[in-house]
Amino acid sequence: QTKARSTSFMVDKGNHRHFMEKEIHEQPEVIGHTLAHYLDFVEGRTRDIPLPFDFSQIDRLSISACGTAFLAGSVARYWFERYARLPVDIDVGSEFRYREMPISPNSAALFISQSGETADTLASLRYCRSQGVPIAAVVNVPESTIARESDAIFPTLAGPEIGVASTKAFTCQLAVLAALAVRAGVQRGHVSPEQERELVRFLSEAPRFATAALKLDDQIEKLARELSQVKHALYLGRGTSFPLAMEGALKLKEISYIHAEGYAAGELKHGPIALIDENMPVIVIAPHDRNFDKTVSNMQEVAARGGRIILITDTEGARRATINAMETIILPDVPEIIAPIVYALPIQMLAYFTAVFMGTDVDQPRNLAKSVTVE
Amino acid sequence: QTKARSTSFMVDKGNHRHFMEKEIHEQPEVIGHTLAHYLDFVEGRTRDIPLPFDFSQIDRLSISACGTAFLAGSVARYWFERYARLPVDIDVGSEFRYREMPISPNSAALFISQSGETADTLASLRYCRSQGVPIAAVVNVPESTIARESDAIFPTLAGPEIGVASTKAFTCQLAVLAALAVRAGVQRGHVSPEQERELVRFLSEAPRFATAALKLDDQIEKLARELSQVKHALYLGRGTSFPLAMEGALKLKEISYIHAEGYAAGELKHGPIALIDENMPVIVIAPHDRNFDKTVSNMQEVAARGGRIILITDTEGARRATINAMETIILPDVPEIIAPIVYALPIQMLAYFTAVFMGTDVDQPRNLAKSVTVE
Repeated sequence: QTKARSTSFMVDKGNHRHFMEKEIHEQPEVIGHTLAHYLDFVEGRTRDIPLPFDFSQIDRLSISACGTAFLAGSVARYWFERYARLPVDIDVGSEFRYREMPISPNSAALFISQSGETADTLASLRYCRSQGVPIAAVVNVPESTIARESDAIFPTLAGPEIGVASTKAFTCQLAVLAALAVRAGVQRGHVSPEQERELVRFLSEAPRFATAALKLDDQIEKLARELSQVKHALYLGRGTSFPLAMEGALKLKEISYIHAEGYAAGELKHGPIALIDENMPVIVIAPHDRNFDKTVSNMQEVAARGGRIILITDTEGARRATINAMETIILPDVPEIIAPIVYALPIQMLAYFTAVFMGTDVDQPRNLAKSVTVE
Repeated sequence: QTKARSTSFMVDKGNHRHFMEKEIHEQPEVIGHTLAHYLDFVEGRTRDIPLPFDFSQIDRLSISACGTAFLAGSVARYWFERYARLPVDIDVGSEFRYREMPISPNSAALFISQSGETADTLASLRYCRSQGVPIAAVVNVPESTIARESDAIFPTLAGPEIGVASTKAFTCQLAVLAALAVRAGVQRGHVSPEQERELVRFLSEAPRFATAALKLDDQIEKLARELSQVKHALYLGRGTSFPLAMEGALKLKEISYIHAEGYAAGELKHGPIALIDENMPVIVIAPHDRNFDKTVSNMQEVAARGGRIILITDTEGARRATINAMETIILPDVPEIIAPIVYALPIQMLAYFTAVFMGTDVDQPRNLAKSVTVE
């Protein structure tokens, strides 16, 4: 009875055209729920969650995942290294499992999967199990195989995700990983109680800024009409915005069938810049952070070669970027740690509206399955 | 006087249309020279080269490089992990330098750069210097800045490379790195004297197989005529063939202005497969190795969705791949350790002939510089 009711709840799109649109709009709420599970906003503390390892005793963290979850992990690598000074190895499941890399006995392994059934991720988990390291998983389905085979699970509280292209599961993965990175920083002595309080407060603001990002829908819809005319695009970023650019490109591939490629902005001049002309829009994710000036100089290289730039930045970045962009999407100035969570929304919306203009099957794109249980 | 003579030697294309073509054809010879510098073919031993660190005493190797050199390092990661059980961190220079990642005091750092002047790689080197780890560099210009600032250099003996798109410098980097990985395996006790003798013999065969690969030029030229009609392509591989697929895509971007993207074959089903239709050729690098069967199943997914496959494999692989490929390029069966060196040639030739058909400026592609000394 309960199950039937929950299923009928699950398949309801509400007043949205697609599940993907609904799931994009749920993000402020589910990010908030997820963060509250890991953070005590009142005390300004990370919660003392039981772990199968002690962050202060490990010398490395190995992360393996596939697709969008891999990109969440790639963002988290920057966080663990920055806030916890904990080195991270990360690889896609299909490579990780066959590399049979030597794993330090003082390390821990972390797997990320919305469904908890991703075949290559599960195989990587089993390899790590055979190596005897403690195993944790970030999953959206607590009764999944990956969850059952882990020593600890870090649930994302995204609720059921129906759209094949992941949106709210991705940002909830980011929320869990950011909270874990801060927790690791506290346990490893690199985040002081004052810093912890500040970082927890910053994270608590993510839902509010996500709501603000959703208000950009009119501008992004107009832009998507133009983007729906192109066959390819480049997506650039530095630091945490690099895996986010990969995610932006992946979303365009998945549902808009645009050949978009994500690239580290600094690698542009080592090859891809040869592709730049007026038919290849370049989407740049550049909040005004420590990497901003370098990214601006990469944009100048693009502009000098006739490339059309779509700049996704913040108020301060828009003021400082001396670039003649085709379009500038301006988000509020947000604390650095939540930028990947907040910036995920406009890139999801851009892919969504583009797919709608192209008339593709947004929730069930061709050739793709929601849960990839084959290798 | 000597310098002038050497310069006039450098700019001579011989009977080739382009420097790139000349440099592709020089590879059997310069790979042989480079290998002989690191390996004693008569004794079947890796040479005892002075190192600023002891491979048996380090617990990790950090590699940083840009563009094609980064992809050589990415191939080498598999080698160091497989033959020496030495974990490798690798990142592009422009990300490495800003991540400020924690570096283990028991590690060593390795930088790869043809010119030895690549700005982001040099900055990464200086970061590692500030962290106090021993530094080595694989360079083609021994008097370069990166060479001067390293504790040891591993020269590639490729000779001057004029074409902007790297060819012989890449395969010589691979030759150096393969020899180093075997040396590391010997020093760390994971490669026995018998295995060392066998691996050295395998490596000694690389020039002969490279010569055999060059004989595929007629077939590849015909294929390139078709490829010159397309706007995009995917390049897939697993294991060492994954970074090689990235390199194949980079070459097509650089000189043919085709938007080719390299992807781990196992990641295809996590998004990019949505792009597959008859207008998007899929080039698959699949020697008959430990990953072959998995790659074949990825090709079957592509074929089932109407994708046109260009398969680059060996005799055994062609026999076993039950795929209706648009074209199959068949190399000799080669030992696994030299496959990336040998397979580099057909992917270079494919980009070269495609660019020639398109009429691009092969040696000086638009927007690119040979040595990237800006950030």
